[in-house]
Amino acid sequence: MARQGGRASDPRKVSQELFTLTYGALVAQLIKDYEKDDEVNKQLDKMGYNIGVRLIEDFLARSGLGRCNDFRETADVIAKHGFRMFLGITPAVSHWTAAGDEFSLVMDTNPLADFVELPDDHNQLNYSNLLCGVIRGALESVQMAVDVKFVHDILKGDDQTEIRVKFIKRLEDALPAGEE
Amino acid sequence: MARQGGRASDPRKVSQELFTLTYGALVAQLIKDYEKDDEVNKQLDKMGYNIGVRLIEDFLARSGLGRCNDFRETADVIAKHGFRMFLGITPAVSHWTAAGDEFSLVMDTNPLADFVELPDDHNQLNYSNLLCGVIRGALESVQMAVDVKFVHDILKGDDQTEIRVKFIKRLEDALPAGEE
Repeated sequence: MARQGGRASDPRKVSQELFTLTYGALVAQLIKDYEKDDEVNKQLDKMGYNIGVRLIEDFLARSGLGRCNDFRETADVIAKHGFRMFLGITPAVSHWTAAGDEFSLVMDTNPLADFVELPDDHNQLNYSNLLCGVIRGALESVQMAVDVKFVHDILKGDDQTEIRVKFIKRLEDALPAGEE
Repeated sequence: MARQGGRASDPRKVSQELFTLTYGALVAQLIKDYEKDDEVNKQLDKMGYNIGVRLIEDFLARSGLGRCNDFRETADVIAKHGFRMFLGITPAVSHWTAAGDEFSLVMDTNPLADFVELPDDHNQLNYSNLLCGVIRGALESVQMAVDVKFVHDILKGDDQTEIRVKFIKRLEDALPAGEE
């Protein structure tokens, strides 16, 4: 018990199982409410956006990291610090475009979707779409507009889960992002 | 970064902030859907029940604990092992009835409700009611029917958050003489 006791006593962590099941309850509720997968994806992205706007403050305070010099550094910070701090995983950063304005976060495992099986009639559902919104909201809060979407998903039979992040523009306005 | 990196790399943990905000999104969605606080409480309890039924398997496998000898032991296991493993907190077990069939779990902090403020028009909402369902579902899975409810809540201005757990009955004929 000692090892588990030690891990579990960290007051800033909760068990992944509890998180996964709670997230599952949220997705199930949205499916009940909105029926169409596209609409559920949109709602998850929106909720994620609002979460990202909140998490970024915590992230900056806890990581002590400053402004990124370029989009490559941003990608590394998201994967090696952001995902690691909040989800306990470190996605690979890959598939850069030649222009350096677009990359992928590639995951072998996805804590949001552990033990999840998509029903056959929901093949347009991006189950973990909350993550896209979180990245979008967090980056917008540091004046960076991005487009974020799932391009592969283990839940849909792909080998890996891949999130594509595309740089759109720097936001000039330094006002904090509002809630959507 | 070393310390955070070390903590965050535990693959069975996610950050409390992410969990708290995701849970908040779930409660907000239910409020939108059901409007009445009583109905939201009921839905949260139901979702929690389904989560508890799943978590108990994980709990038994990871804790290595066997059957409890009496309800007092059950209370200790819930507080010192269950809450600690899943939420990273250890509530105090107190306010036993003389008959030993009812106790309280008392918490100074509640990871589900960090930074949450109840709007004035939701004073019947038991924001963290998912927890009651989780306890109920988990115990029912080990043949113990209980009634679980919030009696105090920091969110409502109380000094502490208190969950009351009442033993109802053993669900199979495994009841040892003298336990009730």
